[in-house]
This record gives sequence, C-alpha cells and structure tokens, in this order.
Amino acid sequence: MTPDELYRTVMTVDPPATETPFEAATREFLFGQVWNRPGLSIRDRRLVSLACVAAADATGPIDDHVYAALRSADLTIEQLNEATLHFAVYCGWPKASHLETTVRVQWHRVHAERGEQPEPWPTLTADDLGPADRDERISLGQKEFVDVNGVPAPPSDSPYFHSGILNFVFGHVWRRPGLSRRDRRLVTIPCVGLSDAATPIASHVGSALETGDLTYDEMQEIILQFSAYYGFAKGQALHDAAERWRASKT
Amino acid sequence: MTPDELYRTVMTVDPPATETPFEAATREFLFGQVWNRPGLSIRDRRLVSLACVAAADATGPIDDHVYAALRSADLTIEQLNEATLHFAVYCGWPKASHLETTVRVQWHRVHAERGEQPEPWPTLTADDLGPADRDERISLGQKEFVDVNGVPAPPSDSPYFHSGILNFVFGHVWRRPGLSRRDRRLVTIPCVGLSDAATPIASHVGSALETGDLTYDEMQEIILQFSAYYGFAKGQALHDAAERWRASKT
Amino acid sequence: MTPDELYRTVMTVDPPATETPFEAATREFLFGQVWNRPGLSIRDRRLVSLACVAAADATGPIDDHVYAALRSADLTIEQLNEATLHFAVYCGWPKASHLETTVRVQWHRVHAERGEQPEPWPTLTADDLGPADRDERISLGQKEFVDVNGVPAPPSDSPYFHSGILNFVFGHVWRRPGLSRRDRRLVTIPCVGLSDAATPIASHVGSALETGDLTYDEMQEIILQFSAYYGFAKGQALHDAAERWRASKT
Repeated sequence: MTPDELYRTVMTVDPPATETPFEAATREFLFGQVWNRPGLSIRDRRLVSLACVAAADATGPIDDHVYAALRSADLTIEQLNEATLHFAVYCGWPKASHLETTVRVQWHRVHAERGEQPEPWPTLTADDLGPADRDERISLGQKEFVDVNGVPAPPSDSPYFHSGILNFVFGHVWRRPGLSRRDRRLVTIPCVGLSDAATPIASHVGSALETGDLTYDEMQEIILQFSAYYGFAKGQALHDAAERWRASKT
Repeated sequence: MTPDELYRTVMTVDPPATETPFEAATREFLFGQVWNRPGLSIRDRRLVSLACVAAADATGPIDDHVYAALRSADLTIEQLNEATLHFAVYCGWPKASHLETTVRVQWHRVHAERGEQPEPWPTLTADDLGPADRDERISLGQKEFVDVNGVPAPPSDSPYFHSGILNFVFGHVWRRPGLSRRDRRLVTIPCVGLSDAATPIASHVGSALETGDLTYDEMQEIILQFSAYYGFAKGQALHDAAERWRASKT
Repeated sequence: MTPDELYRTVMTVDPPATETPFEAATREFLFGQVWNRPGLSIRDRRLVSLACVAAADATGPIDDHVYAALRSADLTIEQLNEATLHFAVYCGWPKASHLETTVRVQWHRVHAERGEQPEPWPTLTADDLGPADRDERISLGQKEFVDVNGVPAPPSDSPYFHSGILNFVFGHVWRRPGLSRRDRRLVTIPCVGLSDAATPIASHVGSALETGDLTYDEMQEIILQFSAYYGFAKGQALHDAAERWRASKT
C-alpha cells in the first residue's frame, strides 16, 4: 500500500495534506514504512500505539487512534475498556482517566456518524471482580505472576507486593477475560518501555519471548512501532532487553 | 539555616563540594531556597520529593531520598511502604517496582551503618486487603471517592471504574491505614502533576483545598517543591489549577 | 539584566505580577539566574527549553515559548519546523503532534498581531525526504551515525536499527538541512535526558563533547537549563554523564 492508502486503512479517514517536515515524515515514515511492515498485524500495532499516545497525553492523537480502533472494528468496546484498565495499572490512573473518557466519547461519535444508536454499553457484575476470598486472590496472584513472568513470585510482605502486585495486578487484572495474555503484553511492553523501569523492562520483554506469547521477530516489530510513537531514545532500552534475551539463548 | 546546613538536615549526610553550575544551583536553589521555606514541614516535602524522584527514574536521587527519609526517622518503614503502593497507583507499577526494591535496600543500609540488625520487617495479613465482599468494596469505594474528590462517584460500568477506581483505588488503597489522607495527597498531587492529566490535576488540587486537607499556602509550597524536582514546565499546570480554585472562591 | 528585563527579552512580553511562591521562584530563579547566565546564547537556551516544555505537555508554556521564539526572530519558521521533526524522533510523534499544531497557531498569531499576512508557508518537495534508494539510505545512515555518535554503526539486523535508526533517524533526519548538527544536539540532549535512556544519555552527551560540537562548559549550561525546565531529579543523569566523560579525559 502507498503511505496514503495505509493512512486511510489505519486511521479510517482521508489523509490530510503534508505541509511541514513533521507531517511529511509522519506520512512517509510512520505510514509508508512502520505501519506497512509485515510481522505484526494492524490490530496488534494499534494496541502498542494506543498505549504510546495515551501515555504521551496527546489529546488529538488519542482521539484519532481510539476512533480508528472502534471504526475499523479491530477492537471491540469491551477490549478497549479492558485495555484502559490494563494501561491504568502500568502507566498510572491519571493518564488512564483521560483514555477512559475518550473511549466513551469516540464510541458515541462512531455510532452517531453512522446514524445509529450506540449498542448497549457492556454491563459488569460483582463476578467481574474475580474471587472474593483474599487468600485465594493472593494464591492466584502468585500463580499468575509465575505464569506471566517466568520467575518466582515475590514475597507477600509489603503493601506494594501484597495488596498491589499479588492481590490486584496478577491476582485480578492479568486474569480478567476480554483481552488475551498476548494482547496484554502488547499494552504492557510499551508501558514498561516508556516508564524506563529497568527490572520490569527486562522481565516483561524476556518473559513474553520465553513463554512464546511473542516471537523474537514480533518483539522487534513492537520495538520499532514503540520507537516511532514514543521516540527512539526510549526504544533503545527495549531493544537492548530483547538482544540480551536472544544472547542468553545461544 | 545555610544551604549546607539544610542539605545536612534533609539528606542526613555532609554536602559534597559544588563544582559545576548544576551542583551550585542545586545547593543554592533547592537547599538554600526551596527546602528552607516555611509553610510545609521537611517531612511533608519529603513525600512530594520522593514521588518526584521515583517518577523521574533518577536512581541516585531515589537512593539518597529514601535513605534520608529512613535515617531522619521522618518516615517509618510502614509509611514508606504505604507510599510506594500509593505511588504505584498513580505513576504505574513499573516505576514503583524500583522504589520498592530501593526501600528494602536502604532499610538494610541504615541499620547496617548503625551496626544494628534491622527491626523485624512489618508483617501483613489478609485483613490488610480490606473487606472481601465485592459489593461492599464498590460501596466503600463510592463513599471514599466522594470524600476524597468532593464530586459524585463515577458509574461502575467500565473495568477502569469498576475494578480499578471503585474496587481498588478508592475501595481499598485510599482507605488503608498507615498514611493519613493528607499524606496521600502529598504523594498524589505530584503524581497527577507529572502525568499531565488535566481532569485529575483539577480534581485533586481542587479537592485537597476544598476539604481543607491542605491550605492554599501549603498547596503553593507543594507546587514549588514539585517544580524544583520535576521542573517548572510541569509545575505550571498545578499552579493554574490552584489559581482556578482560588478564583472560584471569590 | 534584572529578572523582569530578562523575562521581557526571553518571552517578548511584559512580565506578569508575581503573587505566588511558584511565580516568584520562576521569576527569580529561571529568569534572574538561569536565563541570565553567560556560556550559552538565549537562542541556544530556547532550543533546550522548547524540547522540555514540549515533552512536559505544558500547553501554556509551549504556546509562550513558540510565540517568543518566532516573535524574537531567534528561530525561523523553517528552523522551528525542523526542530519539531527532530523532537518527534526523540520524544515520539504524539507529543510532537501538539508542538506542530502550536507552531502553526503561533505563526499566525505573530503575524496577525503585527497586522501582517503570514509569509508563505515554506514549501516542501519530495527531495526533502532524502535519497529514495534504500541501500544508499542505510549507507548514509551508517556514516552519519558514526559522525554524530563517534562509535561504529550498529548492525542493520533489527527493525529498530534498520528501518528506524539507520534508514530514518540517521539516514534522513540528522542529515536534513535547516538545523545545524549543533542545533540538533541542543534538542537531542534534553530529549534523551527526560527519556531516562541510559545508553542514549551516555552516547549523546559524550559524543557532543567528543566532537567539539559543544564544550564542557556549554554542556553544563544545557544541563542547568534542562534541570530548571524538566527538574533537577532528571538533570542528575545528564550531569553524571558529563562528569564521566570529563573523568575519562584525565
């Protein structure tokens, strides 16, 4: 596809004219080269890009990417809502608050443009909060932590680990239906990358590869997609983590 | 106090020589002016600064500020652990992971330097996770949301609000003992400030003032402490929110 | 110059009254001390500060700094447009998208205030995208990488390096006319600093000094300007990188 065709496919609207170096490079590099690459589907690239634009507080791009995700039907409203919660965990609640609002607004916009009433908003029940028993939560969290990270669960002896990591992040969020574990990795990896957290970068890049949820070639595509959207400066650390994992295999 | 004396009080070690413009400005501006101001205690300023250095991924300053908080006894190990969980919620788990590790390392360092065995690490129980009943959690979360934010609770109809905001953030974290609501605001305000999240900035700055948890003059000190550590560029949005609140009162 | 005079010179408007600790510190510290220092021109400091406010998503300061850069004629519209593209590479497209829009808005504002029609917007041609031949791009990228970084080019064996670093970042962006290599460093160094990217911090600070594009004293001024706008917490890592380079020379 030409850059303009790919822009239309990804963003679901006609491409604007390119008048500045930024706009010309956006069209040629982002759409002509990055989104055009094989190795990762456009849907997968959307999850990576959504995390990046949401973290970057870029209100215009957040609107555009959420709208395009819904309009293309690449992501359902349930999936976008799940991605928002997952993003909140890894990039913090304040940034996710804006994303949450945007999803609601764009959901109505997509239907309004089609002259439709929005489908009923998905309902949630107490069961969606996972098991109530607190010991069971910790126990499930320990198991999920091992499954996702491929290393032993941390001690349950600080609020961060006990109430946070084991009870909520792994005891609940990663175990929720609605997004596959692979999908959750597509949100998590850009988030740890932009957070510059050395240990989480190493553990999430390494475990995604180790579990086979993502191939090495897919990881390379994620890193390029991330670098294009969140900058090559931060991309380097993800790239180094992938290379360290590969080196450890030979 | 002179800048050097204040450096010694805050950082609990002798000030190094200042050889570069950065070092000289750090000493004169941060310690000679900002930390030296009345209107907010050094302990309060520590909570603001800890959130800033942890968010900035500044490994050296994170070590130094955690060490000084423990060595000065301004914050107990329980309080630092609570602050880590609260920080995780607002700035994301990846950055908090590094802070969690640092607290453990510096806790041992402080005791080792005194030739002491560390006191027993605080133990946690299932009760520390709050009520198990899921409807009760949501109900408590709605009440806490209103108390903290001074606005109606959001609908419980998306994973972000249901599982996240109501069940976990307000149904549990804000209600935990160990840090007062005022202390939690001293962590939250820098976190929403550095996250550039317009709605959370307005709601957290406004509600801290509206509830009287923080006075307008204290808020001004928080904003200056934040700006010194996380930059005047981001400080502007916090400042604007405080001014808008004040204008709404006249 | 007094802080007020310097404010007028830098921001090109009359200084507002200072009523809060934040405003007073901004005036006295930023304008009375930082912008007032010798060793780096105001134009150079503008490029550093622009990168900082754009990365900080500080919409008010972004407006003010872009306006002042154009109104002072310290930066031409072509240079600002180039700086936007360069910033996009290092801090990501979403944040740059807002800067791009701001440049257009302020460009019209500056002319409108003077009662002028804006000069014709600079036109771009396909040639501005650099050589089309892909092998030539990679080859030019490898050469430019060596020239800028002073270390061997990376292997062209991952999408990040092949399509990203060699083809686009060094094969095209750094080679564009419109900004000198030194100017591009004034944008790059704050971007790698605020991104907390350890390897890029070391390589860009070190290579700017090693090539002589920036002197050690100029680097110190950049670090202080950066710290004022993006915080002393993050300034530390740039400072440490400069000190490590100096130590390696003795």
